This record gives sequence, C-alpha cells and structure tokens, in this order.
Amino acid sequence: MIKVGIVGGTGYTGVELLRLLVQHPEAELTAITSRQEAGKAVSAVFPSLRGRVALEFSHPDKAALEKCDVVFFATPNGVAMGEARALLAAGARVIDISADFRFRDAAEWERWYKVKHAAPELLAEAVYGLCEVNRDRIRGARLVANPGCYPTAVQLGLLPLVEAGVVDVDHLIADAKSGVSGAGRKMELHLMHAEAADNFMAYGVMGHRHWPEIRQGLARAAGRDVGLVFTPHLTPMIRGIHATLYARITKEAAESAKSDASYFQALFEKRYAGEPFVDVMPAGSHPDTRSARAANVCRIAVHRPREGASTSDTLVVLSVIDNLMKGASGQAVQNMNIMFGFPETLGLQQAPVVP
Amino acid sequence: MIKVGIVGGTGYTGVELLRLLVQHPEAELTAITSRQEAGKAVSAVFPSLRGRVALEFSHPDKAALEKCDVVFFATPNGVAMGEARALLAAGARVIDISADFRFRDAAEWERWYKVKHAAPELLAEAVYGLCEVNRDRIRGARLVANPGCYPTAVQLGLLPLVEAGVVDVDHLIADAKSGVSGAGRKMELHLMHAEAADNFMAYGVMGHRHWPEIRQGLARAAGRDVGLVFTPHLTPMIRGIHATLYARITKEAAESAKSDASYFQALFEKRYAGEPFVDVMPAGSHPDTRSARAANVCRIAVHRPREGASTSDTLVVLSVIDNLMKGASGQAVQNMNIMFGFPETLGLQQAPVVP
Amino acid sequence: MIKVGIVGGTGYTGVELLRLLVQHPEAELTAITSRQEAGKAVSAVFPSLRGRVALEFSHPDKAALEKCDVVFFATPNGVAMGEARALLAAGARVIDISADFRFRDAAEWERWYKVKHAAPELLAEAVYGLCEVNRDRIRGARLVANPGCYPTAVQLGLLPLVEAGVVDVDHLIADAKSGVSGAGRKMELHLMHAEAADNFMAYGVMGHRHWPEIRQGLARAAGRDVGLVFTPHLTPMIRGIHATLYARITKEAAESAKSDASYFQALFEKRYAGEPFVDVMPAGSHPDTRSARAANVCRIAVHRPREGASTSDTLVVLSVIDNLMKGASGQAVQNMNIMFGFPETLGLQQAPVVP
Amino acid sequence: MIKVGIVGGTGYTGVELLRLLVQHPEAELTAITSRQEAGKAVSAVFPSLRGRVALEFSHPDKAALEKCDVVFFATPNGVAMGEARALLAAGARVIDISADFRFRDAAEWERWYKVKHAAPELLAEAVYGLCEVNRDRIRGARLVANPGCYPTAVQLGLLPLVEAGVVDVDHLIADAKSGVSGAGRKMELHLMHAEAADNFMAYGVMGHRHWPEIRQGLARAAGRDVGLVFTPHLTPMIRGIHATLYARITKEAAESAKSDASYFQALFEKRYAGEPFVDVMPAGSHPDTRSARAANVCRIAVHRPREGASTSDTLVVLSVIDNLMKGASGQAVQNMNIMFGFPETLGLQQAPVVP
Repeated sequence: MIKVGIVGGTGYTGVELLRLLVQHPEAELTAITSRQEAGKAVSAVFPSLRGRVALEFSHPDKAALEKCDVVFFATPNGVAMGEARALLAAGARVIDISADFRFRDAAEWERWYKVKHAAPELLAEAVYGLCEVNRDRIRGARLVANPGCYPTAVQLGLLPLVEAGVVDVDHLIADAKSGVSGAGRKMELHLMHAEAADNFMAYGVMGHRHWPEIRQGLARAAGRDVGLVFTPHLTPMIRGIHATLYARITKEAAESAKSDASYFQALFEKRYAGEPFVDVMPAGSHPDTRSARAANVCRIAVHRPREGASTSDTLVVLSVIDNLMKGASGQAVQNMNIMFGFPETLGLQQAPVVP
Repeated sequence: MIKVGIVGGTGYTGVELLRLLVQHPEAELTAITSRQEAGKAVSAVFPSLRGRVALEFSHPDKAALEKCDVVFFATPNGVAMGEARALLAAGARVIDISADFRFRDAAEWERWYKVKHAAPELLAEAVYGLCEVNRDRIRGARLVANPGCYPTAVQLGLLPLVEAGVVDVDHLIADAKSGVSGAGRKMELHLMHAEAADNFMAYGVMGHRHWPEIRQGLARAAGRDVGLVFTPHLTPMIRGIHATLYARITKEAAESAKSDASYFQALFEKRYAGEPFVDVMPAGSHPDTRSARAANVCRIAVHRPREGASTSDTLVVLSVIDNLMKGASGQAVQNMNIMFGFPETLGLQQAPVVP
Repeated sequence: MIKVGIVGGTGYTGVELLRLLVQHPEAELTAITSRQEAGKAVSAVFPSLRGRVALEFSHPDKAALEKCDVVFFATPNGVAMGEARALLAAGARVIDISADFRFRDAAEWERWYKVKHAAPELLAEAVYGLCEVNRDRIRGARLVANPGCYPTAVQLGLLPLVEAGVVDVDHLIADAKSGVSGAGRKMELHLMHAEAADNFMAYGVMGHRHWPEIRQGLARAAGRDVGLVFTPHLTPMIRGIHATLYARITKEAAESAKSDASYFQALFEKRYAGEPFVDVMPAGSHPDTRSARAANVCRIAVHRPREGASTSDTLVVLSVIDNLMKGASGQAVQNMNIMFGFPETLGLQQAPVVP
Repeated sequence: MIKVGIVGGTGYTGVELLRLLVQHPEAELTAITSRQEAGKAVSAVFPSLRGRVALEFSHPDKAALEKCDVVFFATPNGVAMGEARALLAAGARVIDISADFRFRDAAEWERWYKVKHAAPELLAEAVYGLCEVNRDRIRGARLVANPGCYPTAVQLGLLPLVEAGVVDVDHLIADAKSGVSGAGRKMELHLMHAEAADNFMAYGVMGHRHWPEIRQGLARAAGRDVGLVFTPHLTPMIRGIHATLYARITKEAAESAKSDASYFQALFEKRYAGEPFVDVMPAGSHPDTRSARAANVCRIAVHRPREGASTSDTLVVLSVIDNLMKGASGQAVQNMNIMFGFPETLGLQQAPVVP
C-alpha cells in the first residue's frame, strides 16, 4: 500500500484518477488539493464519488504531499514545474499529467507554452511516460511526464511503421478527432453543449501544442527529424480520441515483399505482442472510440486501401483511446504501477462501458 | 466460485452482465447463448470485450446451462418462461432480467404482454428481485424476477412515502425519462440516432407495461390498491433514468408535525440506512443521471417546493439510476450475490463514470 | 418596411432573431448593439450569417435605436427596464424578450429577480405577449413583454382546461424539460458539453423564476389564484421544450358528460381553432420536440390515461415548442407582425428541420 | 409555377425536399410516392409538416408523375434507372438524388453498386449536377445526376487546387466525417442512438462507393487519372459533413511565387467568386458544420500549416456542408432552379440554424 497525493483534483483528469484510485488495491489516497474547493468534501464536488471518497480538498499549501510516496499533478500546465522539485527532494515520486515535463528542450517548451520553464534542470531527468516505449526507464524514474492524449493515440499508431523504417517520415499525417473532455473542465464558449453538440470542427490547424510532442516522440523512434501535419478536431462526444493516420510506404518497402498488406498487420502485432493495453485489431477492423470508453486501452487497425484494381501506397492506421484513460489518468496509473513494481494491470482492468 | 450461464447474451443487458461478470471474483462464466450469433466469439460481437471474454456464443440447444449454478435470462420477454422450469429441475437457480416472472397474476401478465404465460405455476414461487424490499426472500429463492428499469427507479423513490402512509396513494404521478438503451438493442425507427438525438418525447401515455409492475409493488407496500399516472419519455442519452415523482401529502400528515420538510428527508434516510446501493442525497439536491452512470446505485432527493410564501402540499422526489445497472444487470448481480451468500457489493463497486 | 433594432444581439435569442429577420420581407435591420462585440461584423461572430447580415455590432450608446420603428431587447434581465422609457418616448415600440416587463407586480418581480425595478410605471402599460391570449391588446401596444420559454409551453398546454374550469387549479403540475439553449449563451459549468451531454437532471425544484410568471397567466385565466408545482429539467439537446402537464379533472366535470376523453380533445381543438401557431395533435399523439425544431409552433396533445379497466381522473397534456422560436424570438416576431398589422405568419413559415 | 413530383418521399432526402418545396414560390408539389406509406397523409408520417403538406403518399404505379415538369428521385439506389426513361419520354425532366446516373461508365457503376445498370444508354446524357462545375450543361439537361454528399464536399474543396495544377494529384487524401443522416432513414444497428451517440468510427476504409465518384470528378478537372485515399467516418451528429483534405503542393508550385499561403487563399476566392452557395472563409478559419446546418452552402477554408520555423508542403483544406442540403436535396433544388431558369437561390435562402 502506497500513499498517494493528487494536486489539482477538480479537473477531469483529477476525477478520473479518483475513480481509478478508489478501486486500486495498493493505493491509499491521502491528500487531494484544490485552491478553489479547499475545505469542501470531494463528494460534494463530485456526487458520483459519494460513499467512495471521504477526503476533503486541502489547500495546496497545507497538504502534506511530501509524505506521499507518489504525487500526481492533474493541474493546468505550469503548476507542476514549480512544485516538483520540492516534492522530489522530500522523497516523493511525481507523475505529471500536465505538459510541464514532456519536452526534452526547455526552449522548445517555452515557445509553445509561452511561459518560462521553472525547472529546466528536471527535463533531462523526467521520463516520458509512454509505457510501451519507455517501460524500463519508467521503472526507476522519480519524475514521469505523462503523455498528452493526442500524442498517445498518434504515437502508438505510427510507432511500428516509423521504427521499422518502412514509411516516408517526412510526410506523416495525423487527422485526429477528440471528445470535448480533452479540453479539460473549463469554460470556453465553443465547449458549451449548445455550441459543441451536433457540430464538428477542426481547430488549431496552424499549430497545436501536441504537434511538437508527437514529433519529438516520432523523431526519437526514427532516429531523425520527421515531418508531420497534425489536424485536431472537436467531436460532439464526451470521451474518446480517434486518430486516422496516413503514411506513405517507402519505395524500398513497396518494392520488397513488404508491400503485402499482411506484412503491416504482422508488424503491428509483433510490436505490441504482450502489451496489456494495446490491442491490434484483426485486419479490416474499424475500432470505434466506445470500444475503449472508460478503459485503459488503445485499439489499433492498419489498412492498405485498394485503389480500384491496384492498392494505394498510403497506409491508413486507425488508433482509438479514451482520452481520460490511456490518454491521461489511466496511463498515469499504469506508470504508477510500473514505478512501484505492481502488476502493470493492477486496478486498470475495468472493461469498457458499452453501450 | 460459481458457474454462471447467460441466455441471450447479445442485447444490452447481456453485454452489461458480461462487463460485470468478467470482474466478479466469485463468478465463472461458463456458457452464453445466442441463437443468431452461435459459433461466433463474444469478443467479435463486442470488441470492447476483446481479451476479457474468451467464450463463443453457443446455440441455446447445445449449451450445458443445466450444469450452471445460476442462469441469467437476458432475453426478450417470453423466453425465460419457457425454459426456467427445466433449469430449476436440473438444480440451477434462475435470475430473469426479462419481465416473465414479475407479476403475481398470470392473467394480468397476459393482458399486458399479449401471450399466454408458459409457466404460471412458477409465478407464486418467483421472488420479485427488488433487493431493498425482498432481500430475505431473495436469499433462498430459486427463481428471481429482476425488476424493470422504470419500476426500480419509481418504487425506490416512492416506497418510503407509501410505506409510511403519509401521501395520497390514489393519485401518485411518475414522470419518468429514460435513455434509449432502455428499449434494448433492437432496431426501431424512433431509436435511430438521426431520430432520437436532439429530440425528446413522451410515449405510451395511454398505457405502458411497467405501469402494472409499479402498481403491484406500491400496492404491496401500501396494503391496498394505488392510483398511478405513469408517463415515460425517451431522452437523447444512452443510459440513465430520471424519475420525477409527485405525491400529495395526506391531510393528516400535513397537519401533524410531519409537515416539516426535514421529516421527509429523515424518512428517506431512515428507510435506506445501511442500503449499499441507495443513496439519499442531502436536502435540496438535484441528482443527475450521470452520477449513477455505469454504477449500481439509485440516488434519491426529496423536495417539498415552496409556493411563494407557503409550501406546496405536493412532494417532489427525484430518483436516478443507470437503467442497465441498478435498472437491470447490476441489480441482477446484486441478486446473485444475495442468493449465493456473497457480500452484496461484491463485483459491484465500480465508481460512476463522470464525465 | 419597418426599421428594426436589436439590443444585445450576441445571445441565442439575438442570433435567432437575426435568422428570422434576414428573411422577413417587411423588416429592415438597421441597428444591432453589443457592448462586447462593438465594431465587429455580425458575420464574424456568427459565421452562419456570412453573406446575410452586413451590419456591425454598434456600441449601445451610439446606436440610433430611437429612429427604429421597433426595438427588440435580446438582453439579460435588467437591461430593458433601464432603456425602454427613452425609446418609447422617442416613438419606437419595444418588444422585450427578457423578463423585465412580464409581471404586473413590481414587488413580486423584485422578489424573484433580486434587483429594484427601474421602470415600475411601465408595468401597467406593458402587454404580456402571449399572442393566443392577448392578441387584441398586442395590436395597439407600445411595449410588449415577450413570454418566457417554459411559460409559453406550460400556459398554452393548460389554458384550455383552466379557462373551461374543468380541472382542479389548486394542484396543477408542470414537469418541463428544456434543451440547454434555454439557459442562454453563457458559460456555466453544468452547461458544458462534457457535463450536459448524455445526462439529465432536474433543477430549481425549490423555486424557479418562471413559476410566478406561469402562475400569473393561469390565475388570470382562472379568475383566481392557482396552485402549481413546476419542475424544470435540463435535457441533453440544443433546442426544445417538452412540458408534461398534469391536471385533475374536477368532480363536477368528471360526473358530467365532460368525463369523456373526446370532450377534452374537442376543448383544445376549439380553443385553438384558427391559431396559426398552435397545433392540436390528433388524439393519442406524442409530439416530439423536433417536430417544432427551428419553427414557430406549439404542438399539443391531450391524454386521459387508462388505469387498468377504468380511466384516470388526471389528464396528461403534452406541449412542445422550440424554446428559441415560439418560446422566444419566433414569438417576438409574431408579436411584431401583430403590432404592425402584418399578416401574423409573415416571415415565420419555415418548416421544422427534421431530422 | 412548375409541377413537381417526388418518387420515394419517406427518406431523409425526401422529407428535406418537402421542407424546401413547401417554401419554394415556383414549385407546386403535385405527387409524392411511397410504396410503403401509400394512402397515408404525408403529415401523418412527418408531423413536422402538419399544416404544410396536404398531399397523401401515392402508390408509385398510380402517381401521375409523367404530368410533372420535374420529378425528383429520393429513392434508394437502383430505382431511378428503371423509371427515368419513361418519364423522360413523357416530357418530364428528372433529378436523381440517388447514385444511378452519377458515373459515366456503366461497368464501373456495376462494379460498385453490384447490380446491372438498367439504363446505360442514359449515362451519356445525364449531367452530373455539381452546379459549380456543370452549370451550363445543367441548364439544358433532361436528366441530372445529383452528386453524393461526400463527393460534393470533397470535390468543392479540392477542385481549385486540381484545376490549377498546383498539387500532386496522385496522392490526394480526403478524411471525411459525416453525421448519421448521411446513411439514410434506414435501420442498421450501428446507426442506433445507443450505438452511434458518444462514439466515433471510421468505416469503409477499404472501399466506399463515393470513392470512384470523387475520383471521376477530380480526374475530369485534372485531365488525367488521380490517386485518392478516402476515409469516411461516422460522427455522432444528425447532419453535417466535414471533409479535411490533404494535398501536397507540387515542386514547381512550391518553388514559384505560388508557395505563398495567400496564393492559395486567392485561388479559392477567385474560383468561387460569384458562387451563391460556396463561401470561401477568411484565411485561418475553421468552419464548423453547424454554420451550414439546414442551409444550402459549402464553407471552405484553406490552410498551409507551419512546421516549426518552416511551412509544410501539404495544404489542409476544410470543407463543410449539410449533407441533406448542399449534399443532397438543397443541391437538387439548386439544380431545378438552374434547369427551369429560376434565380439560382430561389427558395434556398434559409439561414443556417445556429445554435
């Protein structure tokens, strides 16, 4: 049993963490902070947790977070970088669900997040918590940067191709669709029900903060810079990301035996063999987002479309997750399990909620 | 560990049972039937269960259901009544999620369900599985009739008042709103997304099969016949029932100390003290359906509205459940737990999925 | 052709007015104000109006509203009462879509709206713009108080019964469900898509500002005070109100020939014969909200439910409108047509948008 | 005033046609057929049209369609090809909203639609009714093949680039998202509200009937074959298509002055200058589908994304329509207006319904 703290527990990643931790057999929630709701019972803010969470929100200054074994940051960007150092010094380990420690390069981070980084010296130590890539380093990490939601879906969908060197990494395309909870529990006009329901739109086509994060991950896998067009879309659903990924097969791959559709299917199956939370679907599948709803799983299907009589040289990969689970809090708990030597699936075996 | 069978596993109550049973530590799913999908892997029909259910659907004739300790019927009405007798004779216990055994009176059942009852002799033995009413009888039951979704929400909301005799039972009103999954996984035009989304309508105002079921339960509690107007509505959401209940306080109650609003709050709290799956909310609450989403809980709030300077003599009770959980499969597992002496909450402690 | 001004054109009633007025053959939109968006093109705020509205929003102080023939207030409550007097003095007529002039009694208004009324002397002059009740007085009115959305649906559904004196007016019940646009284009947490979608809840059970407005209208029709329980609910749809109304038939009515269900059907048909925007549906109908979507119509069905062998003494009336049309801007344009002697249906004959 | 007939008026394109035609000042609806609903009032099937359409559905064999000036086919594929010849011979003109006459090549059509074409001799005469491409030929046409919904959105978004020869036409990508009404008013499991709501999925990745239709149109514009990957997705909304289009700028174009983002903006603005129903949005825009809801308009934005310091060589075009309007019935009425010499916008100036 480890002692767990949560900083900023009133957002969607916070309440999702709570939902998971109340059922986790090795985690004891000992503190949860909220500047705004300090003194209020968690179950008063989230009636869904009545009878499940007895804690009150504490003021950040008064929470004994440094006595925790692990502290999750479920805060807006810019908070964790100011507080992580002290917690680490006190012996706590930190899993940051925000973006503060995801980039290797402080200057790049500052370009996208528009504030000075408060703890650039921690960036080298921070481990990017995409479990399927960094599992070994996560095990020993003091500080884990939990990946963004879009970056999780897109990277898991493209990594097998990029690692194998069989696609043109200068011209990757990620057309990604997210439910509205991906924007957080914040009030913006376009996120209102009367605005977002029965409606669909792209946003941030000229630049989105997840673009450099995805590029960093893919570049690491490719061993070189990559080119990526990333188009996020707001979808009238609560949870879920569907990434539709386009990658052109290299001439070399196309001319070798690799041009066979089954080659790519096998490539994905091999890459994720044994992964408890990545599900390579049978050839021809179209995973829907609800097949991952409220569960910690990424489902992937790889297609090589026909073009009339011939086949396209462009692969289409479909990758779906629940943005609050494998895209945020579920993956954060997965990271916790790895860090503390628990079975990786502990407390994460909820079956998806369908319908 | 008990052996569990499911008849008719392709509907929404079936897949919800599967979601629960794969996480139940004392249940081993040994057979699941479907005439239509026989031979097909469960996970091929429900990709959300990939990696969680290894079974195939069996043809009903070939499933060794009689070797099960308990068999759930997640079938359309009219199936269980034909098959229960043989299973009971073979020693299996039966929990019927359909309507076949809910009425005491075969003639009444036939009036509403328009077919001859195939096992009227079992009606006397069948126990109506509203756990908060019949817990003791469920314990020893061979055959449990799991309540309907509307009847669960409405009865739990009205029982404290009816049992206490403080409201006019000749003029109860239940205005109930249900998500579309309450209609089952069947194709009807008005249940299509393009028809049901962004739309709201009443239906069955002149008569709905849950009306006599609710009346039977309330009459039992009142010790006499009751009058009830029941108006179901189709709501553009997947899961959830919200019952808004109106009951006029009797003159006697109104004139005694009982007229105080806190009296009714206390009445509900006392009635459901110790109930693991009924949550009486604090005075003034407005429970929303999502606070019960994907969880086995009924949340209730009781109001006595003001009328300008005075107060109304009509109480308003708000009662919410997830129609597939406390309104169907969750309650069915709760019944199973009671029947087999497991802790009543075993395998049913999933926190609601919010947002 | 009349000159039309709109004060506060950035809310939902404002953009709906614009949608209607750009198609109205006798209305020329000459000014539209918005403190916040002053100087910005209307079509930049509402891209749906690109190519249809050439105006910019003006600052309220600079708009030549007093030169308009009619000025609509599509503002939050509390604005119109401060500005109406000057406009009336300048010769403009005013249609207030907010609540400022809906009550006869300033003290009652102040009790519910929590601010001092700035123009109590206008309350006596203001005509309550429920066209089906006050058509004659609207014709000559300088100042029309456009009814609230719930009050429109509830009053139209109950008036025939109350006027005929055939129901117990001490115990009326209005269970009303509204889409989220009824709350306006404002940011509140419970109106966010991630909160409101796939969810359903009651609110304001202990008191809602539309309760006294409905009561005032029904009391006028009854010639005495009425008792009313009014329960509003938030429904996961954009537009639409569905009011489910319960009224107990008086003993006298029940004992006379009036107890016949067809009596009530005829009562409604007669009351609304010739009304262009009230549609009494055939007996047994269940109007859905989308049958009024984006159109200026109220559809009503009246039911007398069976109770087993007998019939209930409680009538159930179903009344649906689009809250932004017959419940706000559509009715406002209807009032304008009446005031200026245009055909009442002019510019209001859009057919509902289905699906 | 022309006499208009509709064959197959019970689907979504049929009821949308009705919504438009009841407001069209030059169209008199004289016959509407439905095999299934023959003898039933249109307003009984579609209560939204109560008071607006007095006709009954006729049996196809008994409708005097040949006396109509124009007959719309709002039928499933395969009906119009059997009936068009006789109508044309009788002097009626035909607008087919189904797919029967969209392909030039009968063999290609038969490959995709899996039945023998019944009127291959009419394919050469049929004019593909994409107004912005074939306006002149439509004017004189006897038989117009109304384009598919996806093909309309995709072609309008790509045509300016393809016609100008500035993108690699061998590797076009169309990632398209559609509301569920695009599938028609038919019962399929995945279109049920409980399945489609709060869910998102791709489908038909390996081949969709709109792929050859789009390719045919783009090839015509390019003067050569084109390569296209087309991925349709089912989106939890009722109406609307959002096509996100990717096209790589040719080297030549990239090296010339054309590499400037404003070049592409100007290219689109020039191409669609004067088009009443194509709206090129300002640079940087993200049109949402609701900005076209219930209106006959295609809104387009063209982006050239940054890639860090440099810019991508891939253009992203966003193209939105209402699938039932510019994607079906609205465009059909636009074609009718062109064919009969009416102003092209007659009866089609409804402003979009927002919110």
